Amino acid sequence: MRKPRIVVLGAGYGGLMTVTRLQKQISGEAEIILINKNDYHYETTWLHEASAGTMHHDKVRYDIKSVINRSKVHFMETTVEDIKTDENKVITTDGEVEYDYLVIALGAEPETFGIKGLKEYAFSITSIRSARHIREHLDYQFATYSQEQEKKDERLTIVVGGAGFTGIEFLGELGNRIPELCHEYDIDPSKVRIVCVEAAPMILPGFDPELVKYARAKLEKKGVEFRIGTPIKEATEDGIFIAINEEEVEEIKASTVVWAAGVRGSNLIEKAGFENMRARVKVEKDLRAPGHDNVFIVGDCSLMINEEINRPYPPTAQIAMQQGEVCARNIAALVKGKHDLETFVPDLKGTVCSLGEDDAIGLVFGKKLMGSSAAFMKKVIDNRALYMIGGASLVFKKGKFKFF
Amino acid sequence: MRKPRIVVLGAGYGGLMTVTRLQKQISGEAEIILINKNDYHYETTWLHEASAGTMHHDKVRYDIKSVINRSKVHFMETTVEDIKTDENKVITTDGEVEYDYLVIALGAEPETFGIKGLKEYAFSITSIRSARHIREHLDYQFATYSQEQEKKDERLTIVVGGAGFTGIEFLGELGNRIPELCHEYDIDPSKVRIVCVEAAPMILPGFDPELVKYARAKLEKKGVEFRIGTPIKEATEDGIFIAINEEEVEEIKASTVVWAAGVRGSNLIEKAGFENMRARVKVEKDLRAPGHDNVFIVGDCSLMINEEINRPYPPTAQIAMQQGEVCARNIAALVKGKHDLETFVPDLKGTVCSLGEDDAIGLVFGKKLMGSSAAFMKKVIDNRALYMIGGASLVFKKGKFKFF
Repeated sequence: MRKPRIVVLGAGYGGLMTVTRLQKQISGEAEIILINKNDYHYETTWLHEASAGTMHHDKVRYDIKSVINRSKVHFMETTVEDIKTDENKVITTDGEVEYDYLVIALGAEPETFGIKGLKEYAFSITSIRSARHIREHLDYQFATYSQEQEKKDERLTIVVGGAGFTGIEFLGELGNRIPELCHEYDIDPSKVRIVCVEAAPMILPGFDPELVKYARAKLEKKGVEFRIGTPIKEATEDGIFIAINEEEVEEIKASTVVWAAGVRGSNLIEKAGFENMRARVKVEKDLRAPGHDNVFIVGDCSLMINEEINRPYPPTAQIAMQQGEVCARNIAALVKGKHDLETFVPDLKGTVCSLGEDDAIGLVFGKKLMGSSAAFMKKVIDNRALYMIGGASLVFKKGKFKFF
Repeated sequence: MRKPRIVVLGAGYGGLMTVTRLQKQISGEAEIILINKNDYHYETTWLHEASAGTMHHDKVRYDIKSVINRSKVHFMETTVEDIKTDENKVITTDGEVEYDYLVIALGAEPETFGIKGLKEYAFSITSIRSARHIREHLDYQFATYSQEQEKKDERLTIVVGGAGFTGIEFLGELGNRIPELCHEYDIDPSKVRIVCVEAAPMILPGFDPELVKYARAKLEKKGVEFRIGTPIKEATEDGIFIAINEEEVEEIKASTVVWAAGVRGSNLIEKAGFENMRARVKVEKDLRAPGHDNVFIVGDCSLMINEEINRPYPPTAQIAMQQGEVCARNIAALVKGKHDLETFVPDLKGTVCSLGEDDAIGLVFGKKLMGSSAAFMKKVIDNRALYMIGGASLVFKKGKFKFF
């Protein structure tokens, strides 16, 4: 009799947590296959640092093989092209893979809301490759400005679209990085312009107003201009057009535009035909896709409603990892012939938004934090994610210890 | 009575050597002004390292103020725009400066021999700014290649125009840098192509054939393709066209073209109306410009014929520094009322051509060197240049000590 096969797609927070828990709970009853397009996992929540150039991208990633038990998990480095749920198989660039149980943990993609030119001209903070592309793009603009005869001031203008979590964290890193770049390329810091454009009427919507005020003041002190309640109408080769009011637009010339205003699930969710909202599937309480007994969806491709406020939970690493734990237990139960699956309930411990290496704001266990105590807590959270997946040895290798 | 004023233009090897010697020989008899467009001196002969990214550009430069005696020398950070020898004055971006004695040490500029597109599309290894522009351009091509969906292989093709001293030294550094870049951006090294195009029928013309053979074999082992006896016809946005024979051309697609095939003197030499060959003035034996009793020209703007072979001496740091010493003594003599000036005779101690940090070829005091002994001697020469201008303390700060 063939052993049942569990296939996990994606080695982000959700997928890797599922696999590292499954490999402890399954011993020989099932085959486990992990499929990921890179041979490394990266800390999505640290990519803003690699993008700004304040942390090397190799600090942000680690080998998948260093955290999986290779006697129990078969790792395939390949790209998923399609999911055929009616045939219980996954199509990859290297061929088809059949499954008995499937975990979709394919993560998020940038959501550009149909704004013209963003896909072509804006960078996004979504992967190791895109992060180092932004870092090198910034360096190259500064090096070119320093060298060119006729100085184009827009080379030193950086537009960040979105004042949500990612946008604000990236701005915090930029605030620290710009003085270094100016020093590196002999450039007068007053020539540099950082503009954050946000369509919503506030920065960090949903965050405590006192903390938001602190964050805004700190970022403005680092040179960030905020254009709040201002939608981007179009991105071009030369910068962006923003709406001043219903009739007028204004051009901001900028050689660097980073779009950080929203994410959607993986396009493979849509391609596979799941009912979805922006490529996210509203999963059952046990994390299965509606109508599919053997397909689990965790992380940014899943959608869960927070009934207290009747809005979706945000796509966070915290929730993806908690889902991974429950998903692993539920699959292990099914493999062992049980049918009583566990209900997933998010346990929100808090949120910390970094404002650079040395500063942050946060709400942790209901307590407001700002400044160095929040920055400390952010590093604790980052180290905890490493610990949950790779244990103490991974924390030693990749952890953040520059606490003071 | 007004003191005579000595104005030195340029703080390269020739100008800075002149000033540091003058400040020892003149004590109150004359005013000394040094004009340079940057507040730093850079080691032109090390720029190939900063360009390839094997050495940080800050290691290649030092503050001018750290080597001049500020009680004797007034330093002006400004750009020379014109020299009016009939009025004994220099026009700078910040106003006019009158002189009684002038030293022109304005260095070299790239010579493109009228080849179409080179000025617009090729980089040149001529300054701190241009060096870090090349370094960042290379990094950016690799980062972009790694990130882009449709890979453009020409991003990883680097054309070096010229197999003279600068071209070969840059190729040696590239050979060491490319594996690092491939590692940094997760790129298969076999995708990278380095092509050296040289119109002359050999590399390093004038060098000992045995040493040239060694250099070529070492560079080929590092992945360099040589296209010798092959002129570049045109540079474009996409790469270069080379002449295969009198009728045929071949395109080499390359995102990076570095022109390292020749230099000329400063355009200010031509603008000022001196008789010149490629902006170099054939100076008198005492280093004065013909017909000008109070204008000395040293370094790459001067031209001297090596009568043994009836060809000009190459524009080297070694000769520029030796000229600076004689120039300082001759000006000091004039200031003190003497009219019997010293004749400049180059004292060629040898030449070492680097093939990367760990390898080189050279002829030193008539002895052939290759490999680590030549690489050692290269570092000794580099340190000696620092010592001559800034003494032991500059060698400690900026010297090259990784000998083994």
